[in-house]
Amino acid sequence: MTTTDTTAEAHDSIRNGVDTATLFATLDAVRQAPEAARFQFRAHNQWVSGTHNRTTITDYFGVGEERSHERTFTFDADHPAVLVGRDQGPTPVEFVLHALAACLTAGLANIAAARGVRLTEVRSTVTGDIDLNGILGLDPDVRNGYQGITVRFTVKGDAPAEKLRELVAQSRARSAVYDVITNQVPVAIEVDTR
Amino acid sequence: MTTTDTTAEAHDSIRNGVDTATLFATLDAVRQAPEAARFQFRAHNQWVSGTHNRTTITDYFGVGEERSHERTFTFDADHPAVLVGRDQGPTPVEFVLHALAACLTAGLANIAAARGVRLTEVRSTVTGDIDLNGILGLDPDVRNGYQGITVRFTVKGDAPAEKLRELVAQSRARSAVYDVITNQVPVAIEVDTR
Repeated sequence: MTTTDTTAEAHDSIRNGVDTATLFATLDAVRQAPEAARFQFRAHNQWVSGTHNRTTITDYFGVGEERSHERTFTFDADHPAVLVGRDQGPTPVEFVLHALAACLTAGLANIAAARGVRLTEVRSTVTGDIDLNGILGLDPDVRNGYQGITVRFTVKGDAPAEKLRELVAQSRARSAVYDVITNQVPVAIEVDTR
Repeated sequence: MTTTDTTAEAHDSIRNGVDTATLFATLDAVRQAPEAARFQFRAHNQWVSGTHNRTTITDYFGVGEERSHERTFTFDADHPAVLVGRDQGPTPVEFVLHALAACLTAGLANIAAARGVRLTEVRSTVTGDIDLNGILGLDPDVRNGYQGITVRFTVKGDAPAEKLRELVAQSRARSAVYDVITNQVPVAIEVDTR
């Protein structure tokens, strides 16, 4: 095998910016050692003032050990003035929509790459309808959270429309955030007042 | 009423950085016109490369009209290298933990202010346990999303421990993101391939 061949092979394994050789190697590794796939993600939040607070995301556990992101990520959340805040960041519920779009899109890029489809464009708008009579405690028949969420994707690539739709369907079928939102996750809350 | 009295009154209405007079006025306004509480939040996402994508949050609908945040917020999401990404942002599932911490903390500050409790410190760490054998498609018995989430709060203020715990419990009872995660929200996905 010449150097040119090696380069061509390495190039072929990158599709949609996804290194499919590494992706398949990772799948094989987890197949051999399923406990490597046990992860714990974490967010550290500190109240600033009023509805304004700040989260740092840096450490997590995965593939058998404590790890850190390459840098520490910091995000502010707040309410807009119309909801008695100072608009120092998006509302918490807007971050949920971002998480859903990001999860479905990352999965779509991976799945398309694995199936040999080159994507040229993926955009989405996620909308969530919410009646704040719920969280304001003004109507006991109104839930606190979103009543419904809609994701509208525009997807373009070198495959027929039906194939592109199948890729989105498979991304939904394997999306962690879609599962969290459409199914139930138990949440435990502990309070230390010392 | 002297100027000093007016200033004192204005000062009294601010607690925990929350303008409680505005908070109660907002509640009264929504009580009179419940349709003002119908909001639609939105996130606009664009794929960058591989698992890296970027969301902009700016426009929303509420109190009867189209609105915009005071500035446009932009967030990158990605996977770390160990999950075949380039770590250009937190993972989508980490943003879910951030959203939960932010929602519970904003609610806590509001509720404490409304009930006359001054908070001095609120910190929380949210952890989410996930087995990636689910999203990797390697074990059909493993769900895609978090198997469980734990929120650990440290709360300090001018009230007894039992009162501070009650405030957290009330924040949970009125949290939009807690509801989204612990109950089910219907999600519709549309795909345009033109």
